[in-house]
Amino acid sequence: MDQRPIGVFDSGLGGLTAVRQLRQIMPSEHIIYFGDNARVPYGNRSRETILKYARQDLRFLRQFDPKLVVIACGTVSSNCLEDLQRENEIPIIGVVEPTVRRAVSVTASRRVGLIATRASVSSGAYQRQFAALDPEIRVFTQACPLFVPLVEEGRFRSGDVVVETVAAEYLAPLREERIDTLVLGCTHYPLLTEIISGAMGGSVFLVDSGREAACAAQSVLLQRDALAGPGMGEARFYTSELAADFQRMAEIFLQEPCRAAAETVDIERY
Amino acid sequence: MDQRPIGVFDSGLGGLTAVRQLRQIMPSEHIIYFGDNARVPYGNRSRETILKYARQDLRFLRQFDPKLVVIACGTVSSNCLEDLQRENEIPIIGVVEPTVRRAVSVTASRRVGLIATRASVSSGAYQRQFAALDPEIRVFTQACPLFVPLVEEGRFRSGDVVVETVAAEYLAPLREERIDTLVLGCTHYPLLTEIISGAMGGSVFLVDSGREAACAAQSVLLQRDALAGPGMGEARFYTSELAADFQRMAEIFLQEPCRAAAETVDIERY
Repeated sequence: MDQRPIGVFDSGLGGLTAVRQLRQIMPSEHIIYFGDNARVPYGNRSRETILKYARQDLRFLRQFDPKLVVIACGTVSSNCLEDLQRENEIPIIGVVEPTVRRAVSVTASRRVGLIATRASVSSGAYQRQFAALDPEIRVFTQACPLFVPLVEEGRFRSGDVVVETVAAEYLAPLREERIDTLVLGCTHYPLLTEIISGAMGGSVFLVDSGREAACAAQSVLLQRDALAGPGMGEARFYTSELAADFQRMAEIFLQEPCRAAAETVDIERY
Repeated sequence: MDQRPIGVFDSGLGGLTAVRQLRQIMPSEHIIYFGDNARVPYGNRSRETILKYARQDLRFLRQFDPKLVVIACGTVSSNCLEDLQRENEIPIIGVVEPTVRRAVSVTASRRVGLIATRASVSSGAYQRQFAALDPEIRVFTQACPLFVPLVEEGRFRSGDVVVETVAAEYLAPLREERIDTLVLGCTHYPLLTEIISGAMGGSVFLVDSGREAACAAQSVLLQRDALAGPGMGEARFYTSELAADFQRMAEIFLQEPCRAAAETVDIERY
């Protein structure tokens, strides 16, 4: 048993969907979340800058003596995971590898879709991971740049003509490719599950990167006999930006009332 | 006559709508544009950070020996204009004051609307300027957070159910207030003129902050006998972000094919 917290960081607040999954599957765990909203998005930065930012994010979290860290940011996961793992003795889990592993294990047709931000799609990180795990799989990609702002404005519910129209347009090419599995390659997208399922048809399996990272974290903790418990764990939230907007956003992503306010951190100091 | 360029900067690419206006009303002028996309948006930052960024943006532009600088960023205009004017001997023009001056001069009902980003509305900068120029005017505000991403995705044309639905929702409260003048308090919004006019009804006068800043620049240059000419001026573009996406965005904002590519600048060095 290990009562130390799990650390989670993301370039913004999307990683809170991973926190939601962690809390669902391991409710006794304490969680420390850091969202680097002041410097979001990481996707357009140089690899050097991304590594510098990720090291700062991790140094901040390590103050809390975490037993494991989840990188809920696709950009950091695909650019810097190995550097961070080499530099830190605690287990560090990214989102890309467990997500792709799940997609590879569920696809029957070997035709998989990937939706993500424009930067994530063009980085090729998910595509490389697919090629590494199963070069036979065909990956069809679609950038969905309006999904993030729509989710952040709370427009993710069925019946909203705005998000339904945008989703139908983005997903039509993937529908035509007759994929059987779709990777939600951005931590905002799980909130759009109903909309995306509706647009794709119910038989397509959606892989939620936050859920897969949470499952991967659970297996590591199980292997190390390091789960917390008993009792309910607490979550604490930090952001590099003014925290005023945090509560509104956190309740969208966590899908539960957010008890504690977020604290603002000067991340440049780390 | 003065052949030196006009400098223009913004936290992102929205300021290109001001460049478009400058080119329309003063086609002989050379223009140097800097968009600080790497650090956009400025609206959520502390005043100290905004001033630091604005000084760097201006130091970068001053390398080109500009005869005048237009700050196409509402956040910088309302937080730092006086500091920058005091620190620099060349004329510096912001967007807020000329925009509000125009609205004050055209409103008959003294009921004016203001639409902008969430940060600009809650900063109160436009509202304070109205109060300073005419305390009798009632200002009704509405944040329109989805307008920026919709414009950046090219969704600003009549007949697009997505942007028309969003605009109708945002503007319904202002319609009810029977305003006769509406300030477009964000440099992205002029692209939505048709959509916004459609939602508000044709009798509402729209004040375009980019056009007002361009007109203010023209009067200053006229007063100083510092207009360029004859011949066509050239525009050069710089951004602090990877320049790959620049051309696509620039053609949206300038509404003309963009001849020159943008160059990337490491703004932290200034």
